[in-house]
Amino acid sequence: MDNMQRLSLNQMTVNQWTLDEAIEGCARIGIPAIGIWREKLVSKGVEHAALRIRDAGLRVSSLCRGGWFDDLTPAGRREGMEDNFRAVEEAATLGAPVLVLVCGPAASRDLDAGRAYIAEAIAELVPYAAQHGVLLGIEPMHPMYTAERSAIVTVAQALAIARQYPEDQVGVIIDAYHVWWDPEIMPQIHIAGPRICGLHLADWLVPTSDMLNGRGMIGDGVIDLRALRQAVDSTGYSADIEVEIFNAELWQLAGEEVLSLVKERYLACV
Amino acid sequence: MDNMQRLSLNQMTVNQWTLDEAIEGCARIGIPAIGIWREKLVSKGVEHAALRIRDAGLRVSSLCRGGWFDDLTPAGRREGMEDNFRAVEEAATLGAPVLVLVCGPAASRDLDAGRAYIAEAIAELVPYAAQHGVLLGIEPMHPMYTAERSAIVTVAQALAIARQYPEDQVGVIIDAYHVWWDPEIMPQIHIAGPRICGLHLADWLVPTSDMLNGRGMIGDGVIDLRALRQAVDSTGYSADIEVEIFNAELWQLAGEEVLSLVKERYLACV
Repeated sequence: MDNMQRLSLNQMTVNQWTLDEAIEGCARIGIPAIGIWREKLVSKGVEHAALRIRDAGLRVSSLCRGGWFDDLTPAGRREGMEDNFRAVEEAATLGAPVLVLVCGPAASRDLDAGRAYIAEAIAELVPYAAQHGVLLGIEPMHPMYTAERSAIVTVAQALAIARQYPEDQVGVIIDAYHVWWDPEIMPQIHIAGPRICGLHLADWLVPTSDMLNGRGMIGDGVIDLRALRQAVDSTGYSADIEVEIFNAELWQLAGEEVLSLVKERYLACV
Repeated sequence: MDNMQRLSLNQMTVNQWTLDEAIEGCARIGIPAIGIWREKLVSKGVEHAALRIRDAGLRVSSLCRGGWFDDLTPAGRREGMEDNFRAVEEAATLGAPVLVLVCGPAASRDLDAGRAYIAEAIAELVPYAAQHGVLLGIEPMHPMYTAERSAIVTVAQALAIARQYPEDQVGVIIDAYHVWWDPEIMPQIHIAGPRICGLHLADWLVPTSDMLNGRGMIGDGVIDLRALRQAVDSTGYSADIEVEIFNAELWQLAGEEVLSLVKERYLACV
């Protein structure tokens, strides 16, 4: 990229920082957008966050996360849905255009049943999100998370659900780390086209030391991030590009240092 | 399963054992077949192994492994191909019906180029294997191995290559651990039908402590192994079922103990 106009810092990349610190950091270095995690809203509340972000002149690119539709009991499912309603409300308050859905693993060995419940739960969540003007972004995750985070692992799967709703109600998040391995990723991005409502970036390190927190700074791994970004852009996507990196080593650094690296690598590799 | 007639012990499951020990162990406990690793042939040679296996009344289900087509240089590619020729010869000497191909990662960020070379290398290997009566079995591996072991990650990809050759020359190996996450796995198994030339089993543990050597004993994880086995069998597959488990903890046990567990779980869960 030749400028930072579309760069968004997903908070997880600087997990060592509070929300206030992340907002100040972005404003100082000139990153215009931020992706928020609900866990980080708890201490001072969503209204405070919305004000701080607005005052700092930032926009919110997305809220992470809703979903986790993996309960087998009616009570557990009700509780999960209520929490998703709260997530929708928070997204609306923050002015987040998208609520990212990490759909959850299957609750049993029956993956088909798990996937069917995910589709059912999204059907229940859509009207509430639409009332609040919040787009639901289904994020397919890497297949190594099938058992613990998401039974939705390909763009094709996410699209099959999203297509049942209007384009401004349900879309698909393309996260390079989660989908780069897919032999069908380029045609799937093309097919997804206007359904794409988010682009997240992290790199795949060789070796990968930790399945959750061993994701790489962009440019440190083997993913052709530019090719993926260009493919997504070629469909007409022109919204924010979130750098979202779960990396325990980056979290040991000073947040400022991480931000400088994000900026440098974004300009060089994306 | 209600008997062990199709059970094969892949040597890697008892990596603590020499080949001779594994052969004796299988004969003692009544496992009729064995899957061999080339590394384990080095000390006493392939002729010795072939004799010992025959004398013990076992059959060989497969030889692991050929492939690893990831070099960018002509010299490196030549060397890799020569090694694959040796693997074919070894498979023939052992009477192994199938040489398992772990196709290798891409050598650069260009996955398409990596995949193209894999297809090209297989094209070069097929005539040599066919002359020796050895079927090449392309094994799609879990996407978490894309960068380090195999750029072929789905049955659909493996099939697209295999279909370019006669059925008795190139087939596809279904390994439950590598493909269970795939939303298309059941239709793909159906489509693969007569191309299926091997069925390998290991389970997916939650959590997975190690990406290579954290595979689970069958029955200890979340994969519906019986459903996968039944799907494969429903296509007409009736050959051996290899239990192949890379697990550092199992390798600390006495080999006999591992074999008893394999037998018990195979009868209960497969």
